[in-house]
Amino acid sequence: MLGIDPGSRITGYGVVEKLKGGELSRVCDGQVLLNPSVSLPERLLAISNAIKRIIDEFKPDAMSVESIFFAKNVDSAVKLGEARGIPLLCAASAGVPVYEYAPRSIKQAVTGYGNATKEQVQKMIKIFLKTEEGIKPDAADALAIAICHIHHFHPGLESKRLSAKNTAVRSRKDDTIAG
Amino acid sequence: MLGIDPGSRITGYGVVEKLKGGELSRVCDGQVLLNPSVSLPERLLAISNAIKRIIDEFKPDAMSVESIFFAKNVDSAVKLGEARGIPLLCAASAGVPVYEYAPRSIKQAVTGYGNATKEQVQKMIKIFLKTEEGIKPDAADALAIAICHIHHFHPGLESKRLSAKNTAVRSRKDDTIAG
Repeated sequence: MLGIDPGSRITGYGVVEKLKGGELSRVCDGQVLLNPSVSLPERLLAISNAIKRIIDEFKPDAMSVESIFFAKNVDSAVKLGEARGIPLLCAASAGVPVYEYAPRSIKQAVTGYGNATKEQVQKMIKIFLKTEEGIKPDAADALAIAICHIHHFHPGLESKRLSAKNTAVRSRKDDTIAG
Repeated sequence: MLGIDPGSRITGYGVVEKLKGGELSRVCDGQVLLNPSVSLPERLLAISNAIKRIIDEFKPDAMSVESIFFAKNVDSAVKLGEARGIPLLCAASAGVPVYEYAPRSIKQAVTGYGNATKEQVQKMIKIFLKTEEGIKPDAADALAIAICHIHHFHPGLESKRLSAKNTAVRSRKDDTIAG
């Protein structure tokens, strides 16, 4: 399971595996740090390259992301959207289904408390994954998103699934490329 | 020159060529219509496939997009950002430089008047491109964005360029994939 915490400056990622006994195992996690002095298209390309590499290497069964309810202003919401669209595209391109969870559900799934602090989430992540190693903040959020999916997801219950099976794109003849 | 008018429902595109005499020629234009019942990742993939195909076929020297100052709310700003990031990624991936113009500059470039209506822009586009054919609204906006770049751009003056030459992405060893 791949969890992604997208951002215009840092995109966190975390891969968690559910072992046969139900135990969770931390497979990999990290942060894609983006140089703010590099152009936006190049930053988006860096996110795309990193996520593609992770999908290629770990072949996750699914990807989960946080839904967005809040942004400081329109400008930061657009920037967040730009960064968030890239992992979604990478998943669709690789045929990986995407699930979305509200921040409250993620905190609830990991700590049992919807208003938990970032520190409480990080502490519980370490307990769940039986690790003492430091986990970077955005990577911890991504791991929490992955764990949330594992806790919530039951085959058959696909209400939170973002990727529909119907991939048809409505198009009209006159909307395709004209010579 | 490729102009893009991104949107979460419709993404307009327009390719304009500047002929040797300085005249502008309409090469192609159209709209990518996205089925709202299809999942977001699949819609982003449809935008990506369409833009990649256009870049592959017409090999534009540059791409231009409108800058975003306004959105109804955070939710629509995030959606717009998601749709807007994809053409920027496609351009970076193909090595096509991206330029950004304010809506006012685009209207000014095409009609001579920064507060021009959509209808005035469409009328002037037809005059510039010497065409009587109907042009769809989002395709007309994309053509206007392309024409704006052709009018504004002078080699050497690259202040509006979004893609920096420095494509290095800051990364630390511990931020790459851990086994």
